[in-house]
Amino acid sequence: MSHLVIVGGSDAGISAALRSRELDSSTQVTLIVEDAFPNYSICGLPFYLSGEVPDYHQLAHRTHAEITDAGIDLLLEHTAQAIDPSEHQVTVVDGAKQLHQLSYDRLVLATGARSRRPHIEGLDLPGVFLLHSMEDSFQIQHYLTSHPVRSVLIVGGGYIGLEMADALTLRGLAVTLVEHGKSVLKTVDPSLGALVRSELERHGVVVHTGIGVQQIVPDEAELCVSGTGAYGARTDLVVVAVGVEPRTELAQALGIELGTQGAMRVSRTMATSIPDIFAAGDCVETWHRVTARSTYLPLGTTAHKQGRIAGENAVGSERLFAGTLGTQVVKVFDLVIARTGLDDQEAYVAGFDPLTVSETYWDHKMYYPGAQSVQIRLTGDRTTGRLLGAQMAGAVQTEVAKRIYTGTRKVDRSMR
Amino acid sequence: MSHLVIVGGSDAGISAALRSRELDSSTQVTLIVEDAFPNYSICGLPFYLSGEVPDYHQLAHRTHAEITDAGIDLLLEHTAQAIDPSEHQVTVVDGAKQLHQLSYDRLVLATGARSRRPHIEGLDLPGVFLLHSMEDSFQIQHYLTSHPVRSVLIVGGGYIGLEMADALTLRGLAVTLVEHGKSVLKTVDPSLGALVRSELERHGVVVHTGIGVQQIVPDEAELCVSGTGAYGARTDLVVVAVGVEPRTELAQALGIELGTQGAMRVSRTMATSIPDIFAAGDCVETWHRVTARSTYLPLGTTAHKQGRIAGENAVGSERLFAGTLGTQVVKVFDLVIARTGLDDQEAYVAGFDPLTVSETYWDHKMYYPGAQSVQIRLTGDRTTGRLLGAQMAGAVQTEVAKRIYTGTRKVDRSMR
Repeated sequence: MSHLVIVGGSDAGISAALRSRELDSSTQVTLIVEDAFPNYSICGLPFYLSGEVPDYHQLAHRTHAEITDAGIDLLLEHTAQAIDPSEHQVTVVDGAKQLHQLSYDRLVLATGARSRRPHIEGLDLPGVFLLHSMEDSFQIQHYLTSHPVRSVLIVGGGYIGLEMADALTLRGLAVTLVEHGKSVLKTVDPSLGALVRSELERHGVVVHTGIGVQQIVPDEAELCVSGTGAYGARTDLVVVAVGVEPRTELAQALGIELGTQGAMRVSRTMATSIPDIFAAGDCVETWHRVTARSTYLPLGTTAHKQGRIAGENAVGSERLFAGTLGTQVVKVFDLVIARTGLDDQEAYVAGFDPLTVSETYWDHKMYYPGAQSVQIRLTGDRTTGRLLGAQMAGAVQTEVAKRIYTGTRKVDRSMR
Repeated sequence: MSHLVIVGGSDAGISAALRSRELDSSTQVTLIVEDAFPNYSICGLPFYLSGEVPDYHQLAHRTHAEITDAGIDLLLEHTAQAIDPSEHQVTVVDGAKQLHQLSYDRLVLATGARSRRPHIEGLDLPGVFLLHSMEDSFQIQHYLTSHPVRSVLIVGGGYIGLEMADALTLRGLAVTLVEHGKSVLKTVDPSLGALVRSELERHGVVVHTGIGVQQIVPDEAELCVSGTGAYGARTDLVVVAVGVEPRTELAQALGIELGTQGAMRVSRTMATSIPDIFAAGDCVETWHRVTARSTYLPLGTTAHKQGRIAGENAVGSERLFAGTLGTQVVKVFDLVIARTGLDDQEAYVAGFDPLTVSETYWDHKMYYPGAQSVQIRLTGDRTTGRLLGAQMAGAVQTEVAKRIYTGTRKVDRSMR
């Protein structure tokens, strides 16, 4: 009986575990999870912090029982400390600091990402939080319920920053959002970013762009935030969400080759540069279908698909990861913004000769009751006429999400 | 200068006219329209009759000025009475019953469809209406505003019958729907039809299936409707919506070859069997992409695309109509039902070895605020594994429409 050891219990790790057992039930699968929350949706944290998901257990895609019933050995609150690839051994530390040696035949590294820590003084102060893990959200939740918090300043106008601005406004806080770039949501073009900004402001969020936050200093019960351009603000809470970076300490110690933005380099079979070690998810490079190159694009849907491929190949298959289109959808209050493929700048960098056009469309026939407009930007290649990417923005009712992405999720037995 | 004459001013005719002028502005284009409503959306009639579209002019996709500004000669309230293909002449009757001769180099027949008249006694009684044209809807609207109508009986549980049940309920009438088949919306499988029935009943519509209406008899101010199985009902108004049939009198007089369900046989260039005569829209057979055969599937989107091809080829191109997938979406109160491709029965008839599976999915992650379920049926071919078709049903918010069909419509200059 061969033994598959998987490090990491989020989307990629769980997918790898389930897929390997599905294909080969003779394989012993051990999943090492550093916290007590395997297969939780970290994408759902803003909805927990808004109060819309009252019980954090609802964020679990599966229960412990469902995972172990699939024949997976779950080692919760265990940390993989070292890996010896020549001996095929993993050194694991349990919650009581005891060391254990696990032998593996194949290994999947699904160590994920962590919040990027920007160069801001005061990041470790009480009331200042990064947001990536379940534990982060518990700390924020605890702080919010144990302190008289009325205002929050969010550093970063990307997906998480925007979702948190929405969530904490819904929770009744006065929200300020500070973004270093010239517009919010830099993953879409500035004209769509401007729509997002209007939507934030329409809901009372104060938005500052072009400001680099430099320092957070406590002053009585408040926090003083200062930044470039003589920026200054006082707030009760600071949430820093300026992106993520791959967690690759284990991989680096092993000598696994790294690539773009420090993510592990993997083949399209999700194999690393070390034999018998696969990797998947937010810790690895991602094959992009449009550029036919690797990039770093940490997304839950991608992690899930890569994990499946890693799990499948770890039990002897030779499947290739089909690659990502970088499809992303975010809702900010009543506005939905979606993108897929490349934008103009990305297309240019990838060596295309891009042309991007913008147009306003109706979501229904114009006479249709409640018809609303949708902004669409399309990027194509002048040389070949090939469609390279699309961006859209529209009210929730305009079904923008499903104009870009048609996926659905199966309702399983327990109908959670 | 060559002369293109187009008979019919709905989707196919207008598309043909606009496309031909777009490609060749030297072509003279004359559009013969039998009523005063070129390029009106007959799909929008239920929304006019519900009151949601208060002014019927809103149903016009374009104004007269926009059509004539494109260089199209509009002959409104003119009827093409006869065509002489050897002389390349059309005999036209104007509103004053005067005859005119028009010479053409190329001709596009876009004569559309008409309501099918079922074998029901009493169809011509006051208070009994078919619904297909603008004129039909004006007559219904006039009747509704000039009579004390409280109840309506709709014959036919297809798209139009269902939309009218929704529309007239919204208008405040007590609605009864009588369908000949065992379930409503026979274009989807009975399990989805059952969801539609529940949605109708949830909104107070009385639904009778398996009943063939045979007779309508006036009794005092009411209409007595009787049918198979000793069915009897009293109502103030009857709307009959049992489908459409192609209008091909002109084509038949010319000797144009007919095909499925009496629709004109056309090549994929939209050419008829007579030289220099093209045809498009609800009066022709439609090439189906999945079966690679012709069928009769009168839909506005198809008519539009076929019209473009006919117009393009009438000025010298050789474009092929790509074919239809039969994608259809209908909203009944708060439920959206969509389909594309083939269902099990159609697949069987087309010579496939079909398997249809049914599943319930979430529209969002299950924890997501307001997540709702979507019913999905997929039909595949057992022999090849090919996906042949899909059917879905879900609440409006589940974006079912855009899970099946991603189209949008450009907002033009006038932003109607």
